[in-house]
Amino acid sequence: MNQPDPSLVPFFTPAGVAIVGASHDPTKLGYGLSRNLMRSGYRGGIYFVNIKGGSLMGKPVYESLALVPDPVDLAVLLIPAGGMPQALEACAERGIRAAIIAAGGFREIGLQGAALEAECLAIARQRGLRLLGPNCIGLLDTHLPIDTTFLSPPGPTPGDVAFISHSGAICAAVIDWARGQGFGLSRLVSLGNQVDVNETDMLAPVADDPYTHVLTLYLEGVSDGRHFVAQASQVSRRKPILALKVGRYASGQRAVASHTGALAGTESAFNAAFRRAGVIRAETTEELFDWARALAWCPLPGGRQVAVLTNAGGPGVTAADSLEAAGMCLASLSETTRAALQEILPPAASLHNPVDMLAAASPQQYASSLQILLADPAVHSVMVILPPPPMHTAGGIAKAIIPVIYTAEKPVVVALMGERLIQEAVEHFRAAHVPEYRFPERAAQALAVLAQRSEYLAANGAVASEASRPDGTHQQAARQVLANCGSEGWLSQEQAFALLETYGIPANRPHLARTPTEAATLADRLGYPVALKVASLDIAHKSEAGGVLLDLRDAPAVQIGFEQMLANCRAVTPGATIDGVYVQRMAVDGQEVIVGAIQDPQFGPLVMFGSGGVEVEGLKDVQFALAPLGEEEAASLLGKTWAGQKLRGFRHLPAADLQAVTQVVLRLAQLVADFPELAEIEINPLRVMQAGQGVLAVDVRARVAG
Amino acid sequence: MNQPDPSLVPFFTPAGVAIVGASHDPTKLGYGLSRNLMRSGYRGGIYFVNIKGGSLMGKPVYESLALVPDPVDLAVLLIPAGGMPQALEACAERGIRAAIIAAGGFREIGLQGAALEAECLAIARQRGLRLLGPNCIGLLDTHLPIDTTFLSPPGPTPGDVAFISHSGAICAAVIDWARGQGFGLSRLVSLGNQVDVNETDMLAPVADDPYTHVLTLYLEGVSDGRHFVAQASQVSRRKPILALKVGRYASGQRAVASHTGALAGTESAFNAAFRRAGVIRAETTEELFDWARALAWCPLPGGRQVAVLTNAGGPGVTAADSLEAAGMCLASLSETTRAALQEILPPAASLHNPVDMLAAASPQQYASSLQILLADPAVHSVMVILPPPPMHTAGGIAKAIIPVIYTAEKPVVVALMGERLIQEAVEHFRAAHVPEYRFPERAAQALAVLAQRSEYLAANGAVASEASRPDGTHQQAARQVLANCGSEGWLSQEQAFALLETYGIPANRPHLARTPTEAATLADRLGYPVALKVASLDIAHKSEAGGVLLDLRDAPAVQIGFEQMLANCRAVTPGATIDGVYVQRMAVDGQEVIVGAIQDPQFGPLVMFGSGGVEVEGLKDVQFALAPLGEEEAASLLGKTWAGQKLRGFRHLPAADLQAVTQVVLRLAQLVADFPELAEIEINPLRVMQAGQGVLAVDVRARVAG
Repeated sequence: MNQPDPSLVPFFTPAGVAIVGASHDPTKLGYGLSRNLMRSGYRGGIYFVNIKGGSLMGKPVYESLALVPDPVDLAVLLIPAGGMPQALEACAERGIRAAIIAAGGFREIGLQGAALEAECLAIARQRGLRLLGPNCIGLLDTHLPIDTTFLSPPGPTPGDVAFISHSGAICAAVIDWARGQGFGLSRLVSLGNQVDVNETDMLAPVADDPYTHVLTLYLEGVSDGRHFVAQASQVSRRKPILALKVGRYASGQRAVASHTGALAGTESAFNAAFRRAGVIRAETTEELFDWARALAWCPLPGGRQVAVLTNAGGPGVTAADSLEAAGMCLASLSETTRAALQEILPPAASLHNPVDMLAAASPQQYASSLQILLADPAVHSVMVILPPPPMHTAGGIAKAIIPVIYTAEKPVVVALMGERLIQEAVEHFRAAHVPEYRFPERAAQALAVLAQRSEYLAANGAVASEASRPDGTHQQAARQVLANCGSEGWLSQEQAFALLETYGIPANRPHLARTPTEAATLADRLGYPVALKVASLDIAHKSEAGGVLLDLRDAPAVQIGFEQMLANCRAVTPGATIDGVYVQRMAVDGQEVIVGAIQDPQFGPLVMFGSGGVEVEGLKDVQFALAPLGEEEAASLLGKTWAGQKLRGFRHLPAADLQAVTQVVLRLAQLVADFPELAEIEINPLRVMQAGQGVLAVDVRARVAG
Repeated sequence: MNQPDPSLVPFFTPAGVAIVGASHDPTKLGYGLSRNLMRSGYRGGIYFVNIKGGSLMGKPVYESLALVPDPVDLAVLLIPAGGMPQALEACAERGIRAAIIAAGGFREIGLQGAALEAECLAIARQRGLRLLGPNCIGLLDTHLPIDTTFLSPPGPTPGDVAFISHSGAICAAVIDWARGQGFGLSRLVSLGNQVDVNETDMLAPVADDPYTHVLTLYLEGVSDGRHFVAQASQVSRRKPILALKVGRYASGQRAVASHTGALAGTESAFNAAFRRAGVIRAETTEELFDWARALAWCPLPGGRQVAVLTNAGGPGVTAADSLEAAGMCLASLSETTRAALQEILPPAASLHNPVDMLAAASPQQYASSLQILLADPAVHSVMVILPPPPMHTAGGIAKAIIPVIYTAEKPVVVALMGERLIQEAVEHFRAAHVPEYRFPERAAQALAVLAQRSEYLAANGAVASEASRPDGTHQQAARQVLANCGSEGWLSQEQAFALLETYGIPANRPHLARTPTEAATLADRLGYPVALKVASLDIAHKSEAGGVLLDLRDAPAVQIGFEQMLANCRAVTPGATIDGVYVQRMAVDGQEVIVGAIQDPQFGPLVMFGSGGVEVEGLKDVQFALAPLGEEEAASLLGKTWAGQKLRGFRHLPAADLQAVTQVVLRLAQLVADFPELAEIEINPLRVMQAGQGVLAVDVRARVAG
């Protein structure tokens, strides 16, 4: 359980609030801010400050902060940016501990603004002030209540969904839109330029609010990937977190040469981080709040089996489709359930799931059928479908089923199809906190998110466990290998294989030969068949350069191969320094996979698993996870790829040594976690033998960076 | 251009309408139907028929159809199902040519109902009557106008979107929902059980309506796949067709053994059919009508480059993300455009795309900036983003930009974010037929659909071309091969390879050896290395049974291999009849792909291309198209898979003979199109040599079915 940071307390429970820049002029934001705070119902002292003095809304306007009476510990600053350093000094002098800089004119306008921002931060650090913003629309809490925004009224209705946002405009839109969607907000935080307080800092304080049932985030990035994961992991065990992460395609290019690096876009890292932290990712704003309502209002289901209750066939088919697409399945109803339904429904009704009561279904039939479905142990959740009923009113049906939904311990969502004819029903459902969606497709997704949340909580302990770290000897040995590698650039083949071996990853280490004869002697010693690979740090893609020869079966073949290879490589890459040729015994059996790891600039070490070979970037059959990771998470990583599924056995391929692969994933993940200077490392292929027979790293590339 | 079927004319422009089953009782559907037709404004004669006689809504109720005066050519029948045959006879007697059977109680209630339905059809066929339904809610046209439904009022507002639906409940929901979404309907057809008229029949008559700008379909399937494709292809050249196809997961299991068959689910066939017919597929009801509004109201863009105009950064990022995800791209604005924007926007505004005018943007700045963006030749369409503006009203901005959008020859869509503060703007945009969406994500998808439509119309001629058919000699030869194959079951290896050769597909035909010595002699003649494969129709997956040996390099290896293989196969599949062993020269170079074809139960011949090998079902890197197909469509089929992209050259793989692969796809597609008895045929692998060096079918499986 995270301890709330005491320095953030004044933001949410201020003893008194000073508005610096309060204004009489209704066209000024300083007026809107004063009006909103006055109207919000905030019960502490509200103090207006403006150098012009006078009075506003029946209160005195103080000419300076120094004149404001006690108690006051939060200031909202809406004055020209240039006066901000001085205003912050005045805040500190007055004993104020937290300030919301609503004003713009900082980093977002260029270098000069950035310098001003840095100056403000320096003052705040020195004087023990916490800052929200600048360039934000402030925060609000509908239950305390308090509203420090300058937005046009009406503000949000009180509710149980909290919203933390990197965009002020999205805040304004969400406040207004939520009203039409029939859900309320608990706390809302606009983060602005985040000179001090950032999205991660706000997670615990917002989650601590007893009125908040679910946290929603609009993220353009995170300030510190690992810190975000740590904080969000703790919060998400208590309350669900949903995130809309934008900026998908704006990700910068990285200097990477491995497949792992090329495939590990920012989005792979975010997905891995969200998975680890239990954060559910929405793709659109509407999804974000569709799902938030379900999480805020419904009990969690015990599984993925859904019953669909409808009064028409078409919407039932749509529901079945959408449920399957969302990874849910239709529950098989018991004989008892079907018999009970038969008693109350007409003979032509369909008693199989979806249960179709036919168009004439009455409110009472809706309510009783729902009760029967909820009583079936095979049913984990229910979707009720309600198009404008030809014989009854949707409102009447809503009134009949709401008491059933209220007392149910399983989630029920409603697909309420239409507009004018269903308006009364919409209002009943919203008042009763029953999630309603316009069509079955969105209702199905909401049920799937509830199941996902339920599974996350169930698996929670296991997900969080981390691999047992190799003992100090391993780390010591690896440190020695890396110490000899310089501070920047690719490791030689020997170094890279040696590094794997320090962490107990079985490797088919190649041996360097400088002459054809030396190669043949080595091959005789290793045993045939052997492979030859050119030894050159300057040749990244060896096959293309003619620098790989496989399946050589005797000494003459090795000698001829050696000479041919050097000739090829010199022709293709004329400038390259060639150290000789590696001789390696060939592992001929088993499946081939790739295991890689990199340092992500946001989230630190990531590990990747999937289909290997040269086509890895084309097939894209790979998955990422944060490193280090636990056995269960590693096993689930494997299961998400076709390469991993195949390891369980496929056609004539026998089941492979899954256990050994999992160990390689765990160990490579631990290696990059232990050594941040190891920028990327990639085993491709890792050859996986039959169950119990182990694995062998056939090729490995590794790079260190300062 | 399709000729409208004259027998369907009375459904849409009836000379007079008789309602059989008109009722005084407001709780009866026969009352709702009478009321709706009276209120609809239908200008022809309306005649109520009920055996009880009397009068209704100021009109006489005739005791029988025979008494109804001229002119009348359409009847709506809402009487108990049992009386329907007699009522149809009466319709025919009275000279009525079309009937809507609104009543239920037919196929949907079981065998007895199905028999009744068949009886009705027989009468209709015999007497020259066309039938809509039974078990439907009828049809309506808001412009004629006419309304033959019994739904609760209000009916739909007149508009330009037509809706044809397999579900009556969805019709009811869409009529009501459309009102809230701010778009109107032109024609609506509820198809019911489709005893006579089906979805395909209705395409042309609905498209002929001058008020209809776009057709939307809710489909649970199609009655005749190829006929649908033919009709839809013609209609979609004139007017866009959007379809929501449900029942994705309800698809029946097929008796198939090939990879092609296993991968060709109903959905692959529907996707291939929709692509060929130019039908745009939506995944949800909301998408269906989001896109319909854009297609109905906007000009088509000249390309995929979009300008985004916003007053805030966050929504701009969301827009950029969504556009990229939808396959669109941000236009690079010209120097001229940026200079013009700079003149009217504040210094801190962002003049790069997305253009951020900042929060204070005025209606005039919105309008002028939009005009400037539309004038840039690099801009093909524009998304305007409008969160509740802090300094102005959204309504004012809407009024300022609507004239600009009106006169633009490029599409403009609006992401209007909020609810209460944007209500006035919503109304202005809807009245002006400017598509508005609540968030940028949905606006981006709508722009992508406009681009897709534009590309379809541009490519139209080419898409439609079909491959030149092989001459009669080929067909004759193939017919002979198939004549010797029996009417059911798998072809032998020789037969299957021979079949390929008749259509000019290069094949590495295997030779049957019955003894080890015979195998060695054949191998000597073919040249080494050779492969051996067991010859047995009873062993489907030969590798698993130990029935494949590769890379045998001399006669002794062949002899030993022969004996080993037979021993293996007998051990693994004891009951199998083994005819001997096939000897085949091994093709060692080149890339491997799969080309398959099957007969789809709905759409007839389909061809498949993709990554081959035994993992084809795991990798799922395959794509389908309707067969036969044209060269351009074949090339695009290849380009959609990783296997096809790789053929252009990848790493050390040189560019392969794409031309030859395309020919194989065309020819195999033509073969299954020519011979419906060829149930499935699959070349796996097809080995593709370097450009100019051709292809070779290494293995082929084919099955015929009655």
